[in-house]
Amino acid sequence: MSKQPAPDQADSKQGNSSRHREVLDAGLRVFAAKGYRGATIEDIAKELGFTSAALYYYIKSKQDLLLQSVYRPIDSLIESANEIDALDATSTEKLTKFIEYHILLTLERREWLTVMLRDQSYLPEKNIEELRNRDKYYRQVLVKIITEGNKSGEFEVENPSIASMVILGALNWTLQWVRPDGPLDSKAVAQEIFSTLLNGMVKK
Amino acid sequence: MSKQPAPDQADSKQGNSSRHREVLDAGLRVFAAKGYRGATIEDIAKELGFTSAALYYYIKSKQDLLLQSVYRPIDSLIESANEIDALDATSTEKLTKFIEYHILLTLERREWLTVMLRDQSYLPEKNIEELRNRDKYYRQVLVKIITEGNKSGEFEVENPSIASMVILGALNWTLQWVRPDGPLDSKAVAQEIFSTLLNGMVKK
Repeated sequence: MSKQPAPDQADSKQGNSSRHREVLDAGLRVFAAKGYRGATIEDIAKELGFTSAALYYYIKSKQDLLLQSVYRPIDSLIESANEIDALDATSTEKLTKFIEYHILLTLERREWLTVMLRDQSYLPEKNIEELRNRDKYYRQVLVKIITEGNKSGEFEVENPSIASMVILGALNWTLQWVRPDGPLDSKAVAQEIFSTLLNGMVKK
Repeated sequence: MSKQPAPDQADSKQGNSSRHREVLDAGLRVFAAKGYRGATIEDIAKELGFTSAALYYYIKSKQDLLLQSVYRPIDSLIESANEIDALDATSTEKLTKFIEYHILLTLERREWLTVMLRDQSYLPEKNIEELRNRDKYYRQVLVKIITEGNKSGEFEVENPSIASMVILGALNWTLQWVRPDGPLDSKAVAQEIFSTLLNGMVKK
């Protein structure tokens, strides 16, 4: 499997300055709270303490802001997956790290995935397609880790593709049930999910 | 665990006539396709071949239609879970049936869950709370089946509550990846997911 080609970057006037990242973070917070349709440019400017005119220095439109925002979680996941895949480690160790990072991002940056999963339908079809391709790439790294674990004798997974969907479903669903103020931190959640998935439920 | 008390029924002028069910089905199809906010009463009337005025014979408002619609999937799941729980069967058999029915409803009535998961935030807080309670009840039946399987020696699940979340995440996520026109039917999907969850990934 080849590395992901350089992404067709969302246009941004200001590159990756820290102020630009602050704009994206504020956009994600407002989109997560109000939904893409309910959020206005004025809301986002207010969140930043900007005027709307100043905000347009960083983004071209509300849709441009959404576009830049939704690529962040998936690109961060892909970067982490590529790093994990390249490690000199067992498949079990790689899978542990894969699950841990995914849960960390899901729970500690929950507005990222909330907006990506819920609001991507407001993007043009070509961008939705691009997101689907990145998703697919990310999942293929997971399938590769599982398949290598089968070969090394660590895993015994009949259908690595289905298993990857089961894993990602379990991980993404944590958004629905792990509360930010709840008793479980992301590491504890990762450990419990990992143990359920790896060992299965049947008594040995 | 006591049975779910009689639900605080969504008001409906026409009870459960087959025409009334047609109205709910049409509402779900239109909400699923356009989103609750994008859908209009006129769209739903057109889907049914009614005038808008005729539609108001069955529902009080668009929100009333959403309210009646979102209770259907969860009530159907609860009814099935109670039936499965009452069976004279092993925990493994009960869990198999639980997973099969959930996937069947998820995939063959996909607009039900799509609307329930995506659009429930447009309901008044007291109805969202009521949905949460039914969700919780449903999950408790699953936890009970797992816990009984631990006791009977069929399962060895350290944390049945977390396991129930892993299972439901894996099941609900099928909406995202099993295509209606794809090669897998709901029974095959259920079988594959069941095998991954039950046996785990580690080579024995």
